[in-house]
Amino acid sequence: MVETFIPFRGIKNDLHGRVMCYKQDWTGGFKAGFGIFAPTMYIFFASAIPVISFGEQLERNTDGILTTVQTLASTALCGIIHSIIGGQPLLILGVAEPTVLMYTFMFNFAKDRPDLGPKLFLGWTGWVCVWTAILLFLLSILGACSIINRFTRLAGELFGLLIAMLFMQEAIKGLLDEFRIPKRENPKLTEFIPSWRFANGMFALVLSFGLLLTALRSRKARSWRYGSGWLRGLIADYGVPMMVLVWTAVSYIPASNVPTGIPRRLSSPNPWSPGAYENWTVIKDMLNVPILYIIGAFIPATMIAVLYYFDHSVASQLAQQKEFNLRKPSSFHYDLLLLGFMVILCGLIGIPPANGVIPQSPMHTKSLATLKHQLLRNRLVATARKSIGKNASLGQLYGNMQEAYQQTQTPLIYQQPATQGLKDLKETTIQLASSKGNIDAPVNETIFDVEKEIDDLLPVEVKEQRLSNLLQSLIVGGCVAAMPFLKMIPTAVLWGYFAFMAIESLPGNQFWERILLLFTAPSRRYKVLEECHATFVETVPFKTIALFTIFQTAYLLICFGITWIPIAGVLFPLMIMLLVPVRQYILAKLFKGPFLSDLDSAEYEEAPALPLNLATQEGERVARASFAEEDLLDDIITRSRGEIKRIYSPKVTSSTATPAKDPKSLQSPRISEKAYSPCISELKGDKSPQLSGRGPYSPRTGEARPSNLGQSARSSTST
Amino acid sequence: MVETFIPFRGIKNDLHGRVMCYKQDWTGGFKAGFGIFAPTMYIFFASAIPVISFGEQLERNTDGILTTVQTLASTALCGIIHSIIGGQPLLILGVAEPTVLMYTFMFNFAKDRPDLGPKLFLGWTGWVCVWTAILLFLLSILGACSIINRFTRLAGELFGLLIAMLFMQEAIKGLLDEFRIPKRENPKLTEFIPSWRFANGMFALVLSFGLLLTALRSRKARSWRYGSGWLRGLIADYGVPMMVLVWTAVSYIPASNVPTGIPRRLSSPNPWSPGAYENWTVIKDMLNVPILYIIGAFIPATMIAVLYYFDHSVASQLAQQKEFNLRKPSSFHYDLLLLGFMVILCGLIGIPPANGVIPQSPMHTKSLATLKHQLLRNRLVATARKSIGKNASLGQLYGNMQEAYQQTQTPLIYQQPATQGLKDLKETTIQLASSKGNIDAPVNETIFDVEKEIDDLLPVEVKEQRLSNLLQSLIVGGCVAAMPFLKMIPTAVLWGYFAFMAIESLPGNQFWERILLLFTAPSRRYKVLEECHATFVETVPFKTIALFTIFQTAYLLICFGITWIPIAGVLFPLMIMLLVPVRQYILAKLFKGPFLSDLDSAEYEEAPALPLNLATQEGERVARASFAEEDLLDDIITRSRGEIKRIYSPKVTSSTATPAKDPKSLQSPRISEKAYSPCISELKGDKSPQLSGRGPYSPRTGEARPSNLGQSARSSTST
Repeated sequence: MVETFIPFRGIKNDLHGRVMCYKQDWTGGFKAGFGIFAPTMYIFFASAIPVISFGEQLERNTDGILTTVQTLASTALCGIIHSIIGGQPLLILGVAEPTVLMYTFMFNFAKDRPDLGPKLFLGWTGWVCVWTAILLFLLSILGACSIINRFTRLAGELFGLLIAMLFMQEAIKGLLDEFRIPKRENPKLTEFIPSWRFANGMFALVLSFGLLLTALRSRKARSWRYGSGWLRGLIADYGVPMMVLVWTAVSYIPASNVPTGIPRRLSSPNPWSPGAYENWTVIKDMLNVPILYIIGAFIPATMIAVLYYFDHSVASQLAQQKEFNLRKPSSFHYDLLLLGFMVILCGLIGIPPANGVIPQSPMHTKSLATLKHQLLRNRLVATARKSIGKNASLGQLYGNMQEAYQQTQTPLIYQQPATQGLKDLKETTIQLASSKGNIDAPVNETIFDVEKEIDDLLPVEVKEQRLSNLLQSLIVGGCVAAMPFLKMIPTAVLWGYFAFMAIESLPGNQFWERILLLFTAPSRRYKVLEECHATFVETVPFKTIALFTIFQTAYLLICFGITWIPIAGVLFPLMIMLLVPVRQYILAKLFKGPFLSDLDSAEYEEAPALPLNLATQEGERVARASFAEEDLLDDIITRSRGEIKRIYSPKVTSSTATPAKDPKSLQSPRISEKAYSPCISELKGDKSPQLSGRGPYSPRTGEARPSNLGQSARSSTST
Repeated sequence: MVETFIPFRGIKNDLHGRVMCYKQDWTGGFKAGFGIFAPTMYIFFASAIPVISFGEQLERNTDGILTTVQTLASTALCGIIHSIIGGQPLLILGVAEPTVLMYTFMFNFAKDRPDLGPKLFLGWTGWVCVWTAILLFLLSILGACSIINRFTRLAGELFGLLIAMLFMQEAIKGLLDEFRIPKRENPKLTEFIPSWRFANGMFALVLSFGLLLTALRSRKARSWRYGSGWLRGLIADYGVPMMVLVWTAVSYIPASNVPTGIPRRLSSPNPWSPGAYENWTVIKDMLNVPILYIIGAFIPATMIAVLYYFDHSVASQLAQQKEFNLRKPSSFHYDLLLLGFMVILCGLIGIPPANGVIPQSPMHTKSLATLKHQLLRNRLVATARKSIGKNASLGQLYGNMQEAYQQTQTPLIYQQPATQGLKDLKETTIQLASSKGNIDAPVNETIFDVEKEIDDLLPVEVKEQRLSNLLQSLIVGGCVAAMPFLKMIPTAVLWGYFAFMAIESLPGNQFWERILLLFTAPSRRYKVLEECHATFVETVPFKTIALFTIFQTAYLLICFGITWIPIAGVLFPLMIMLLVPVRQYILAKLFKGPFLSDLDSAEYEEAPALPLNLATQEGERVARASFAEEDLLDDIITRSRGEIKRIYSPKVTSSTATPAKDPKSLQSPRISEKAYSPCISELKGDKSPQLSGRGPYSPRTGEARPSNLGQSARSSTST
């Protein structure tokens, strides 16, 4: 994105791009058929469960003024609006933990003011929302999103880890509370005598760890060895919601031996209970708010605006990472404008606003990539089988597959060139043919193992459409009506799910991987090099990595600490904003340029990219793009985030290499595929000849460890 | 072993062999230094915890006549005797689950007879022991152990799985009982009101699953990436006992909020309590047993004799598998004779006898292999470093290492040729040298990564000595005095440990692996081929494997079912004996010879081995023997049991191959190393040139799947 601050320019560009593909956004979704329900259900649960739980948290923190009904309503309402008229439909909206924190800070402030009090709290937040929306409008119109690239990996990953910490904190707090008497309950009830409280706590431990462990396992079902393919697929797609159901069922097993309150379950008023709808008329109260507070509302509003600007844009950015090879354009400015309108709407009807959420948004894209992979695969497999049935040669087979692949590519004005998948297909097929015999001889399944080869060929693509987002928002809305069923879920299952979300968001976060690297024994660091890893592992000295990581960790802990401060905690988004100058002026002085660019590449520091043909030649050496198997897809997409990973790159000694030589500065979507392939081959144990033959580096791990890490590992073991 | 039935011949041979190395059995142990404590503690816990738990079980089943004190005393007494004057010191003795079952059957029979009753129960079992011992003497003198080879893999693995099932059953029963009021307790106690019972049950779930999961994890600590080497080693060596301590400590965390009985802990009389020693005077009661019952004692005695003959010999056999490359001779007959004497001794002092136990005995050998590997490694690394320091060439380095290796090999009359490790060392070093430059140039650590290369070179060897067995027996004896401390262990931790033992015994059991294969999706079966696997996976059609496995599973379930029958259950050892004729006459007719020999090789069916030089040539092709890394050692030794595993063997299409061509019929210890090496290379991702270059088969997995399994996998996906 070019940094441009001409008013309305960004919004116009966004609208122009998205209108072009608006029709295809819908037709594409419907064409996917029932397959669309897998990502829909996955995201629905990932979206609804935190929202339900945040509702519980808000209910405790605001003395019952805001409940699960309001958070669900806001998530559904904003989700539906965004999925229909929003820009980037991959972005998932929801009431997020930072919003809950801000509302808690605001309630704690308002409840003790005699001229506000709990009664006018919602009216006052209405004004906060109005101010927030005005600020968001300004940011959007003035093109503020074009500087989103100044929020480098440093800020994005720090924020990601902060969210993960908040999720984990929620899980631990929740579990500890299971051993205590809840505040707003009658402590004389049977279930609160010490023995039952202890029993409830232990039961909660069983349920939450049960959910956590089984959910983590089920996500990997595709790579299981047991059970038929459809069962494994089903478990991988719907395993997490299934586990919520399973552990809810388990919680009823001892029902006949325990009082009704054991284990504790979700408690929220039904939407049809009296008083549950008081917030709809907030607009009347807004006029009763004293003028001083209306003006004062500007202070929290700036914080929320900063937060939403950052959170919404980063969520959108993470949902559109380069590795996904998206074909449709982004829409940062227009989405921020729309968010402003939704914030006003939520403020006026007294519900907390929803914004783009992490990690659900990248999870959404990832699940759609899996869907697209399945659709493409089924199509190509059918074509290949048909060709083989007709005794086609490898050349013809390739032609037919190319045609079928072409048909799946809807032509779009904004699309990136779509020929990569084909080119690779051709290259590989020819390699295969020459390695196995004549290219014109009829193919059979012995020399061309259809399913396996096609899995190897397919590039990452995403089923970009609006349907899954709309459907999941509608189901979230349906949850408001399904409250009596939701109340059957034990709270302990929620805590387990929170821990699951926190853990699921870690892989692929380089900050997290660097923290792990600090704890890796020096003698085992070479193992990191043997696997897929980011560039910095090879090019940056360990000391620099350690220093950078320790700085970032300290910063993270400060941010986390600030959220604990009673009312000043409202300022924590400022700390995230502050990272931009810190990165640009302080870190740039502390660390050498090439190191910093490998650890945290910022576009504004990068040298212009190499001419494409030169770069391609470079890339060519790193073997063909390939997808190992379905189960690797998860791995690949999770593992990396806008960064290229490799086993042994030609750039083995270049701690002084300029970033320009780094393939990541090339804009073609092909790059990431290519750069992945050595990793994938390694994971597959695939010893294809071009890997060992062509490059200047040997894949044999024992012979050379050319990186800094390898050397430091060796020198530390030899002393 | 040659089948010979000349009286006393077997015992004489055994004694002759063991006397030769008796001195070295002790000096070797003391030379190992403090390292000996790792296997000692590992086996002590693996031995003591089940014995403690079986004591609890016996106490319940015999109305308190036999308790943990008696089972511990028996285990310690027999262990000490066996470790000092026994034949094979790798064999671990203990009171085993089948013994507990037999004693329960006998008690249920005796308690209702008016002329026996609980009072004369121990006296009667004294007679049973006398008869048992007489039978064992006969078996031993007549050379019955020489037919132990007729108990093929079929019987051994079925018995192993039966023991695992009994362990798991004990774990599940124990956990369920945590929710109930124990029989012999006062149900009016606070801890037995419904709420505390439920709390206790849930707490038990947390503790047992906590122990199980952490113990399983800690065994793999050597391959962890985090933490320093000594910490990882410490956790791998002592992790399981440490986890018992940790979870015992955890069980005290809520102590201030719960009544003293929560969670339940081990309950057993202290050995100094009045009445705990009543059994010592059993010999007086033996004379009061009516003559009819003295004669009738012969019936259970035959069952116990059959059981002990089988169990003792199979445990000994499993502790001396070919893959361990033991240097010292076996001692089946003499050990059985000694067992007879110990059975009489135990019978006369009224304690249940101990016999050789599974899985502790193979666990013992395995832990000693790890110890030996560490000792060898440290020595060679020091030598290599010294040579490099002196600017030695690769040739000199090899010479020095050869000398150091030679020094660790104590010359023994019975030892197998010890030159393999060296030969491989030389071959590899030369390969390395030629791949990296001049063999006469000075070596440095860049081209010869000492620790890694040496790990790769070392063959499997076992620290064969008597000290670890003696020490662990002494500590088990010490447990009798440490009863007050043992009583701090929650029973739930025991149940977790039982499940751990059951699961730890599964890997390497081909019967279990075949059961898993039945549940493996046809499209994923090729994954089995990509990993280490047994010969049968490639040579036997899937249908035959399935049929054989279903038969074996049905037989296992019948055996398991019989143990549930109240008194006739005493007959279950007969079912195991029956497997010999079933295998020899029925199965041999149902299955084709070559298939059966791959699934369950019986020595009596095998053709004579090929001449050694011819066979070596064949073996040479399968690359050098190597050890990947410490953590692989576990894997290798656990995975296989007297069977050779490979990735792609030259024998790819030979479902008709004669067993004679199979390298496993060769008696050199080298074979198993060699046959392992492709697996190891694969696991390491090591693409050494000799692997891909020399053989007639290509290691590239995608190109050829020459086995039956691979073909059936493909055909099932293509339909």
